[in-house]
Amino acid sequence: MLKNNRQTVKFLPLCVMVLLLAVLVSSAAAKAPKYVFLFIGDGMGIPQRSAANEFAGKKLLVDTFPYQGITTTHAADRFITGSAAAGTAMASGLKTNIGVVGMGPALKPVKTLGEMARDTGMKVGIVSSVSIDHATPATFYAHVPKRGQYYDIDVALAESGFDYFGGGTIKDPENERGNASEFKGNAWDLIKENGYKVVKSRRGFENLSKKDGKIFATNEWIQNSGALPYQMDTTGNDISLSEFTEKGIEVLDNDNGFFMMVEGGKIDWACHANDATAAIKDTIEFNRAVGKAYDFYKNHPDETLIVVTGDHECGGMTLGFAGTKYQTYFEVLNGQKTSFREFTNKIVSSFKEKEVTPSFEDMKPHITDYFGLKFKGEADDPMVLANHEITRIIEAYQRSMNKEEVKSGDPRTYVMYGGYDPLSVTLTHVLNQKGGIAWTSYKHTGVPVTTSAVGIEGEKFQGMYDNTDIALKIMETMGLGTTAKYAAAAR
Amino acid sequence: MLKNNRQTVKFLPLCVMVLLLAVLVSSAAAKAPKYVFLFIGDGMGIPQRSAANEFAGKKLLVDTFPYQGITTTHAADRFITGSAAAGTAMASGLKTNIGVVGMGPALKPVKTLGEMARDTGMKVGIVSSVSIDHATPATFYAHVPKRGQYYDIDVALAESGFDYFGGGTIKDPENERGNASEFKGNAWDLIKENGYKVVKSRRGFENLSKKDGKIFATNEWIQNSGALPYQMDTTGNDISLSEFTEKGIEVLDNDNGFFMMVEGGKIDWACHANDATAAIKDTIEFNRAVGKAYDFYKNHPDETLIVVTGDHECGGMTLGFAGTKYQTYFEVLNGQKTSFREFTNKIVSSFKEKEVTPSFEDMKPHITDYFGLKFKGEADDPMVLANHEITRIIEAYQRSMNKEEVKSGDPRTYVMYGGYDPLSVTLTHVLNQKGGIAWTSYKHTGVPVTTSAVGIEGEKFQGMYDNTDIALKIMETMGLGTTAKYAAAAR
Repeated sequence: MLKNNRQTVKFLPLCVMVLLLAVLVSSAAAKAPKYVFLFIGDGMGIPQRSAANEFAGKKLLVDTFPYQGITTTHAADRFITGSAAAGTAMASGLKTNIGVVGMGPALKPVKTLGEMARDTGMKVGIVSSVSIDHATPATFYAHVPKRGQYYDIDVALAESGFDYFGGGTIKDPENERGNASEFKGNAWDLIKENGYKVVKSRRGFENLSKKDGKIFATNEWIQNSGALPYQMDTTGNDISLSEFTEKGIEVLDNDNGFFMMVEGGKIDWACHANDATAAIKDTIEFNRAVGKAYDFYKNHPDETLIVVTGDHECGGMTLGFAGTKYQTYFEVLNGQKTSFREFTNKIVSSFKEKEVTPSFEDMKPHITDYFGLKFKGEADDPMVLANHEITRIIEAYQRSMNKEEVKSGDPRTYVMYGGYDPLSVTLTHVLNQKGGIAWTSYKHTGVPVTTSAVGIEGEKFQGMYDNTDIALKIMETMGLGTTAKYAAAAR
Repeated sequence: MLKNNRQTVKFLPLCVMVLLLAVLVSSAAAKAPKYVFLFIGDGMGIPQRSAANEFAGKKLLVDTFPYQGITTTHAADRFITGSAAAGTAMASGLKTNIGVVGMGPALKPVKTLGEMARDTGMKVGIVSSVSIDHATPATFYAHVPKRGQYYDIDVALAESGFDYFGGGTIKDPENERGNASEFKGNAWDLIKENGYKVVKSRRGFENLSKKDGKIFATNEWIQNSGALPYQMDTTGNDISLSEFTEKGIEVLDNDNGFFMMVEGGKIDWACHANDATAAIKDTIEFNRAVGKAYDFYKNHPDETLIVVTGDHECGGMTLGFAGTKYQTYFEVLNGQKTSFREFTNKIVSSFKEKEVTPSFEDMKPHITDYFGLKFKGEADDPMVLANHEITRIIEAYQRSMNKEEVKSGDPRTYVMYGGYDPLSVTLTHVLNQKGGIAWTSYKHTGVPVTTSAVGIEGEKFQGMYDNTDIALKIMETMGLGTTAKYAAAAR
């Protein structure tokens, strides 16, 4: 093929140069991403994603991402993790103990992705559908031994120097829990003193722009515990997770790029309560928030990385129930009109307040209104309750109306109701089971979760790896150095 | 950098040639694998693999494979798949209906990976821990509308021309079920007439070698339904799944290469019965079988592809139970000495045979012997039963001794026992729950499974894809052409 070897030898150095040029061009394309998104579905395991896909009748956007991996979640001191340990792992690459926020097992603080990004001049945004001082978001800006130190976390937020906080509110601005390491005054005041514009209404939110500088945006209606309402409970006045995400992108976009963490926190809360409909609808809204980042990515494909994961599974959700055998009927979930939380708050509470406990007959129409479950009807109507289901519901109703029994700590009662209002949790159990969806726990479980990625070096997120690797891979991709130095310092 | 453009232009054609050479060398390295293994853990979903890892206290070999993916499993006509539809998907790349073996939804036969490999001159081996005519192995050599046509499947096996069958036996050699499409005589006779050496003992098995030509090897003890015993029930005389795999590699190895499918079939059966210990120990044995292929791969790294997957999850297993909250205690499973099957066969059966039903007191020592569960002891002993657990066990014992009640079809009874012996399944439920492991079903579930790969083009098995893609990716890698032509012909 090559007749003159000496000629070839003469050409080789130039060939090498041409090849080097090619390599330079390709490595230029693989420069650090300017825009980095980390989406964390709290309690969003593989069954939650699968259920949302099936309910929606089509693949979620996150399932169409080109890179998919499996992520293990254990904490340093427990197989089944919690949000603080899992959040710290994903924020800092460090395996820590249950309940610890932004510190190693020896309680030395560890630098977070958010802080590293801030220190390189990028803007930083933190969004969550639960309180913005809850464990997962806190692990990106706070360093406290116990996740319950909300006041300390609120102070850390005020002093973080991050650019955008959006979603739920803060839980303990006045240190009412009394567990502050040092009281520095009202946390809202500190937040404002540190230059944040605080808005708490849709109108204020819609008027926000880059000109406002640092922003803390929350929703007018805080459903409970500092969180946004479940997506299925929202009205037109509520600001959704995807809107908080979209606004974050708008105000963070700048020449130095940004890092943004978005948590779908109420997926977890819905799963703790074994409410599949609420969990699925919050998962779909979370996926919609990812869609806002994906729209941005399409305009900046060579400068963006999007990583979507869960911090752990919650509830031991599975897509198959003994009573429905090989069948599933996800469409029955359409019968449910609000989350368990709204049913408890609105209906069960009003019944409890009455001097004479109303009869179960009075509750029936509410059960049909809120969950679509019918007490009589055609045998082939999937919403009609079987006798054994009615028996369960009546028993639960009686316990709901009698607080003492449920709080007795009887292990059988706990397994049945998990400390939730017995009627509400029994109604979601019955409805979910009719759909072929079942649960084994009111807490998290230890099964791995899915991680999905698109964009710059997204291929790194293929395979099977630990939650600490999420932070390490992002840091490496962003050129922040291996975390080894940060993580080691905190061990 | 390049001063003389005209000189560069002159060099370019030679550079292109040098580059072409490099491409040729690299594509030579990526030639079709000579040795291809497909391992299918029946009922081995993500929780089963995770549980086996945790129980073993270290990562299974399959979890250390460099390429890991997530595989969706649905059938053409049902969200929750079955082994026949899932097996057909993985054997032929074709989505089919529940119960159909090696045919499309319109019942046209589809060519399988095994048949394609055979037709290119490779040797073919099929190994399973359940009967070798069970749905999963059958999908690689048989084409029947209903998986229950065991006699037809046995005839297809005899006529397959495959080189090695190892593991369980055949279920209907005499067409006792009477559902044969055509009776051609005793299937064992047909198998021998087609040149197979049949061995049914350890001694015969150990003496097998390449010189024996085509081989059908099974175990002396068939525990039930044509299957090998559960791994935890085996004695030294039983041939394990890993031994059948190792022998297969030995006799199949030849200059034209081989394709081998190995099924861990009893993982599924253990999960149907909600017996975590049996499922985990069969998963570990399945992983050991993969280890035999991996040893072979290490000697032929540039000629081998190993793919390991599951056909679906089974039982709705999760690693977290309401009663144990955030804790797991996998070590309690060590208390169990045999599978639920042996306990039912040996202990429950003998009790039932007695004219006067023995008192529960007589059963207690057997429960302690077989499951490690204690009726009294120190409060901190995790094996000591709580009162509410004892109540459940006594109720189950009474139902076990009274067949009629369980077979009544009462949906509550079915949810509790799934048609299994009530005492046996309650004991595994109680033991598993003490360990923090729970189940939601006695059937398969619809959550995706993990696929792992190593070797030639193993990277193709990263990401998220459907079970049909497993066959398509293997066919493509083996240079068998896209299945499009085969699959389309069968639609």
